[in-house]
Amino acid sequence: MSVCDVVIMGAMGRMGQTLIRFVRTDPDLRLAGALERSGCTAGLEGLDCAVGDDLATVLAKCPGAVVIDFTSPESTVAAAAVAAQSGNPMVIGTTGLSPDQVRTLEAAAARTPVFFAPNMSVGISVLLQVLPELVRKLGPDYNLEIMEIHHNRKADAPSGTAIKLGQCLAAARGAEYDAVKRHCRDGIIGPRPSDEIGVAALRGGDVVGDHTVYFFGPGERIEVTHRVNNRETFAQGALRAAKWVRGQKPGRLLAMADMVA
Amino acid sequence: MSVCDVVIMGAMGRMGQTLIRFVRTDPDLRLAGALERSGCTAGLEGLDCAVGDDLATVLAKCPGAVVIDFTSPESTVAAAAVAAQSGNPMVIGTTGLSPDQVRTLEAAAARTPVFFAPNMSVGISVLLQVLPELVRKLGPDYNLEIMEIHHNRKADAPSGTAIKLGQCLAAARGAEYDAVKRHCRDGIIGPRPSDEIGVAALRGGDVVGDHTVYFFGPGERIEVTHRVNNRETFAQGALRAAKWVRGQKPGRLLAMADMVA
Amino acid sequence: MSVCDVVIMGAMGRMGQTLIRFVRTDPDLRLAGALERSGCTAGLEGLDCAVGDDLATVLAKCPGAVVIDFTSPESTVAAAAVAAQSGNPMVIGTTGLSPDQVRTLEAAAARTPVFFAPNMSVGISVLLQVLPELVRKLGPDYNLEIMEIHHNRKADAPSGTAIKLGQCLAAARGAEYDAVKRHCRDGIIGPRPSDEIGVAALRGGDVVGDHTVYFFGPGERIEVTHRVNNRETFAQGALRAAKWVRGQKPGRLLAMADMVA
Amino acid sequence: MSVCDVVIMGAMGRMGQTLIRFVRTDPDLRLAGALERSGCTAGLEGLDCAVGDDLATVLAKCPGAVVIDFTSPESTVAAAAVAAQSGNPMVIGTTGLSPDQVRTLEAAAARTPVFFAPNMSVGISVLLQVLPELVRKLGPDYNLEIMEIHHNRKADAPSGTAIKLGQCLAAARGAEYDAVKRHCRDGIIGPRPSDEIGVAALRGGDVVGDHTVYFFGPGERIEVTHRVNNRETFAQGALRAAKWVRGQKPGRLLAMADMVA
Repeated sequence: MSVCDVVIMGAMGRMGQTLIRFVRTDPDLRLAGALERSGCTAGLEGLDCAVGDDLATVLAKCPGAVVIDFTSPESTVAAAAVAAQSGNPMVIGTTGLSPDQVRTLEAAAARTPVFFAPNMSVGISVLLQVLPELVRKLGPDYNLEIMEIHHNRKADAPSGTAIKLGQCLAAARGAEYDAVKRHCRDGIIGPRPSDEIGVAALRGGDVVGDHTVYFFGPGERIEVTHRVNNRETFAQGALRAAKWVRGQKPGRLLAMADMVA
Repeated sequence: MSVCDVVIMGAMGRMGQTLIRFVRTDPDLRLAGALERSGCTAGLEGLDCAVGDDLATVLAKCPGAVVIDFTSPESTVAAAAVAAQSGNPMVIGTTGLSPDQVRTLEAAAARTPVFFAPNMSVGISVLLQVLPELVRKLGPDYNLEIMEIHHNRKADAPSGTAIKLGQCLAAARGAEYDAVKRHCRDGIIGPRPSDEIGVAALRGGDVVGDHTVYFFGPGERIEVTHRVNNRETFAQGALRAAKWVRGQKPGRLLAMADMVA
Repeated sequence: MSVCDVVIMGAMGRMGQTLIRFVRTDPDLRLAGALERSGCTAGLEGLDCAVGDDLATVLAKCPGAVVIDFTSPESTVAAAAVAAQSGNPMVIGTTGLSPDQVRTLEAAAARTPVFFAPNMSVGISVLLQVLPELVRKLGPDYNLEIMEIHHNRKADAPSGTAIKLGQCLAAARGAEYDAVKRHCRDGIIGPRPSDEIGVAALRGGDVVGDHTVYFFGPGERIEVTHRVNNRETFAQGALRAAKWVRGQKPGRLLAMADMVA
Repeated sequence: MSVCDVVIMGAMGRMGQTLIRFVRTDPDLRLAGALERSGCTAGLEGLDCAVGDDLATVLAKCPGAVVIDFTSPESTVAAAAVAAQSGNPMVIGTTGLSPDQVRTLEAAAARTPVFFAPNMSVGISVLLQVLPELVRKLGPDYNLEIMEIHHNRKADAPSGTAIKLGQCLAAARGAEYDAVKRHCRDGIIGPRPSDEIGVAALRGGDVVGDHTVYFFGPGERIEVTHRVNNRETFAQGALRAAKWVRGQKPGRLLAMADMVA
């Protein structure tokens, strides 16, 4: 397949810089454009691509290039409207969008391929697809538990990803997560109900995110662990999505689950 | 489903005793018969079931009971012939059978359901079915490696199970295991070929068997670990197979992969 | 050193049988005596050692032999009195003794060497000695967390061993465990206080006991894990203690920490 | 203690930038100076500290500041001579120095405190000090093994750190590493010699460096794992060393082992 052109939003930010670094070392990718907020475009000068603070202007020079956006909800919504107009595909890793803002992305997706993944981890997406099979094949004699580790500044527990994994396991057994979850074990708790799903949260250091799903069976166990080494994995996931999304058709909003199906 | 009657071969041996212990605590199972070699039946007296050293005689009192056999190749082959005659289903965990002896089991399987698994671990069997999906979905950017740990008396390395896992991973990529395996890394080895599958063996203590498959990707990794806590898991696997096999039809020899399909 | 003679209390029970099996395969040990409760001595007949239901009578035939006792508090207290009289050293792994019963053991220890360890794991004892050093050397920038896994019938959480590890870590920082422990994280918990020690409990299958202590530092972490493969490790710990205790002098009650000092 | 002033060599490089980022968020540190090679100082303009391409000139404005150097052997050797003259303490993380070049650092260390650690990981340094105690206390019945994981471009195996760990374990038993090491297990290897130390190397992805030391005992095991999340840990180790080194006296070259003693 031909080289994939990409346009990076927020190119001078930390994620933008990481994206540019990986694009430069991947022969299947080419940096076609780079944008920053008005007044912050100084650093873009040195780049050998279309640069500026106006997406429509830059995209006019980059037909077919995939726009990659990890900026802010407002900025992303505005960019999606422009990409829908120009027909450039888009990969969005922005977090914190409201349901209304997601609906705006859906509208854009009807006109140009839009890939949207607030968690760009390929590994977690794949596990969410494979774990139900493991639950089903091992059968009801296996006790399911989840453990996650995150850095010491994280304010919520368990992590959103741990809850998503728990919902995935519960659903594979036809159960509601809220009915079987156990987020806390302290004191005299009695024997473990066989359908319970324990979820434990450790916090410490600058760990980006570890998740382990345990299957405890008679005399054996299976442990499935996902570790993020560093945040760069989210940039890598976005670049993999960029290559994939330009072969897709407009329609509904595309997700990680579509790419790794 | 009704209670499952079982007949234990080699009932006074270590595996026989373990099987009887688990049968006694499982309401879905009932000890219908117990056998030992001629001259070793003394200890059977106290059991409240049909006992003796002749399988045909015992099975005459246990119609439909599942025969569980972890004895020796010769004894197992003889037992299979008797079970084929009486129509009792059979679960065989005996190891070390020659291809000729396996063919005898296949002949018995044509007349009565025979389940044969030299490795009774449910977990490994399930992983062998699920791992190819993981390989395929993660894609070629993920480096595959295997690590296994066994007790310090094990004479071969890597373990048979590690090699089977390696073959499974290689096949999922359309490769031959022997062409991509790497059992040893020592000295100046240079960069890792992307299709290589490294297999490392640790040895120590009385570890029954740990196996980990690693998927190293960009900025993230997945680790899938199977641990056998103790050999009792093989007894548990056999009892799960006993419940399952009595619902099967004669035909070809049944394996773990059939049960966890 | 000469072969160490041992006398096994409760020789027909599960732990007694395990002890005898290991004694038979260790050239440094010899089975000198075996006891069972009155009325339960039938199975002892076949053993080639002094047998019976009365400890004083058996010890009269086994001068200097180490008595190993994993029976019940009442039985252990009575045995300690007999051993104090005869001067035989003793290794006690019985659990559930009241403070009064422990005082009885202390009285016996004044007259003959008595080793008492309700948890016979050598590994945990060693970690309790080494972890404070790790805490001190890594310094206050490392966040300490503990995770433990036990079987699904365990009624309390966290495990007694996890709490003991937590107390050990807290003490190494001059803190009270109760002031820094965090047994539960659920909901919006805010940033982790730097002196907090989180302790998480997983439950499942027939896991005998896994404990991990984490040290999360800037950009790195250390994980120290102890795994019990099977309960036989407690028999092995007792036999190691038997060899060690016969070289000790009467005085105070001896503990694991004395042996691995 | 008062705030610690630091001067960063190679300030526009990747490690330099990381160092500056951490200095800015640590209230106990202050950026006093920043240097780059002649002709590369353009980017330094914006920094609110002494900048330039000549160390002596910059140090004249930063008395007592600790110089941090992760540049190249030649550059480091030159910088050490300047620091020795001005009396500024120095922290050096440069790798690849020849024995002659190290001797130059030793000469500088006689005049000003010089901390030199080609591996700035605090965790590994601490483990090298604590592991011998673990080996000694557990005793000869425990089998020692090492496993390491590094990225797929690493050319040598096992890693230098794994070998250093192996030497540390061997020395704790009074053995020569070369006499007991086992870097490769493949085929019919027979039972494991009890004094053997197996070292296995896995390769994959962009793993910065994981090392695990195993102690396999009777029925139990201890696993001690060190994981580097990202290279930033080396910057963090250098900054910890900077705070520590300014309280030291000139004399011999200081190492990690001195800081975590």
